[in-house]
Amino acid sequence: MKISMAHGAGGEIMQSLISDIILSNIKNKNVNGGIGLGELDDGATIPFGEYEIVISTDSHTVDPIFFPGGDIGKLSITGTVNDVSVMGAKPLAIANAMVISEGFTSEEFEKIIKSMGEACTEADVALVTGDTKVMEKDKLDKIVISTTGIGIAKKGEVTSDASLEVGNKIILTGSVGDHGIALMSYREGFGFETDLKSDVAPVWEMIEKALEIGGVNAMKDPTRGGIANALNELASKSGVGMMVYEDKIPVKEQVIAASEMLGIDPYEVANEGKVVMGVEADKAEEILEAIRSTKYGKDAQIIGEVTDDKHVIIETSLGGKRILEAPIADPVPRVC
Amino acid sequence: MKISMAHGAGGEIMQSLISDIILSNIKNKNVNGGIGLGELDDGATIPFGEYEIVISTDSHTVDPIFFPGGDIGKLSITGTVNDVSVMGAKPLAIANAMVISEGFTSEEFEKIIKSMGEACTEADVALVTGDTKVMEKDKLDKIVISTTGIGIAKKGEVTSDASLEVGNKIILTGSVGDHGIALMSYREGFGFETDLKSDVAPVWEMIEKALEIGGVNAMKDPTRGGIANALNELASKSGVGMMVYEDKIPVKEQVIAASEMLGIDPYEVANEGKVVMGVEADKAEEILEAIRSTKYGKDAQIIGEVTDDKHVIIETSLGGKRILEAPIADPVPRVC
Repeated sequence: MKISMAHGAGGEIMQSLISDIILSNIKNKNVNGGIGLGELDDGATIPFGEYEIVISTDSHTVDPIFFPGGDIGKLSITGTVNDVSVMGAKPLAIANAMVISEGFTSEEFEKIIKSMGEACTEADVALVTGDTKVMEKDKLDKIVISTTGIGIAKKGEVTSDASLEVGNKIILTGSVGDHGIALMSYREGFGFETDLKSDVAPVWEMIEKALEIGGVNAMKDPTRGGIANALNELASKSGVGMMVYEDKIPVKEQVIAASEMLGIDPYEVANEGKVVMGVEADKAEEILEAIRSTKYGKDAQIIGEVTDDKHVIIETSLGGKRILEAPIADPVPRVC
Repeated sequence: MKISMAHGAGGEIMQSLISDIILSNIKNKNVNGGIGLGELDDGATIPFGEYEIVISTDSHTVDPIFFPGGDIGKLSITGTVNDVSVMGAKPLAIANAMVISEGFTSEEFEKIIKSMGEACTEADVALVTGDTKVMEKDKLDKIVISTTGIGIAKKGEVTSDASLEVGNKIILTGSVGDHGIALMSYREGFGFETDLKSDVAPVWEMIEKALEIGGVNAMKDPTRGGIANALNELASKSGVGMMVYEDKIPVKEQVIAASEMLGIDPYEVANEGKVVMGVEADKAEEILEAIRSTKYGKDAQIIGEVTDDKHVIIETSLGGKRILEAPIADPVPRVC
């Protein structure tokens, strides 16, 4: 078998590559009984005294490397701190390994590093260590940035993505599709005509406010595969279903317009500054208000609830119901 | 300026890229006063109660991906656990981010993953989390693997690479040049005629034995740029000099023969299973014996001592003295 673009696109095809080849060949998958590779969560944990160290890693290959609303530098830092954040841990530090193509200009490189520095400052994390490699120009296009985030949570406060309970409310912290559709519009050459931008932003402030209130059972950031993938993963890992209401899901007008032009479902594309959380019903309104008080959470909505069904069902604006399937792969390649 | 292969080759040119562009644009470089980006050590530390979390990251681009004695999978795990080890911390966990070229075969991919699994088992670390991306085949050759290692040390037991003291003895745990010369010989097509192999191996057992005895002031694994780079970095960071004796430095006969044919100095090429340590003189013999009792430390030697000079001086077998300079770059590209 040859590996295809879909194997890296965050959907079912990728899941099967991971289970078939990776999980079966790695014996040691966790430390001290923490969350490990087998859980396929957004990151891992190392329980340690009264605390848990939280780790998450991502290679960033986004194309183009500069796009409306951000660049590969900002995305690398933000994407990784967000993966630590949705585990319920405050991100503290980033390790940064870069592979640069021979002939890449130092001006573009510096622009990316500046952007990483700014993203670290905004997310209040330190870039503590790194590595730099160079590959021949016919062997690598531009740059690959692999970032690993480290955070610390008190024991018992780590939020897995497998702990939804029937009756939980589902909160979505803002509009969907912005990153994937902005990227695709820009690639297709009509990005300049709209003000459509990637939503790349750190999510910790929203999560911190929610955790202060309590009752947050499970979280995920809907990146590759969009909310269609995130909602299905949360539901299937927790062994529950969901009912979500289409008219509650915030989608920007420009995203709807561009999606239609591109023939892409905004529910299936990556977001880079949003969180989906399952929260106890009696805390839902209070958490929603807290999230709405933050910089990136103004458009947060309660979009549905957890059911004892086995599917994620979506009720359309017209009252019809359909199953919201997990996508086979993100319809926009090289999105992060 | 355009980035060249030398910018990723571990020598002085790389150091200047890092200082000029990276250090000047990143504001937050450490957490809680731990070792951070500014120290340019093998990794970073996050002080945390009675402990320090140790983190190190590397992107692996070795070419070819399968070579005598190992492959990119084994090298990724081992190289990263070794960087954690030389900070004085037992490696516990690895985060693994892979970027694969479209069209790469799943058979080769599985071979690499198996090798990573075996390397984790040997080094007694768990592979706890990961990420998989795919790039178009004209944009990436084969595979890039970025691994981040996490270890934990008791506070005060982290070993920096800047703490040599005048009078310390320098221990080298085995023969030099094996990895770089094996790789280059294989690339040049005469690798099959010798049994020259990469030395890629985990170094923790040797370090653990040395730390149990105490008196280890500074350590470094001589990868890119070889011992010429490692000895100079240790000396210049500690503000000291060294006197090392050429006839004490173990170099395999095949490495000498191949080096001469290739016109490459074995002191300047990467090793992947060796440690250079500066230890208190009165503990040196005991530490040496302890290292020699381990699987990978049988050929360990005391190769010299720390002086109050400003250079690393090498005394040749014939009694002449010369300055051992830090190389501008590793003479063998894409070595790790």
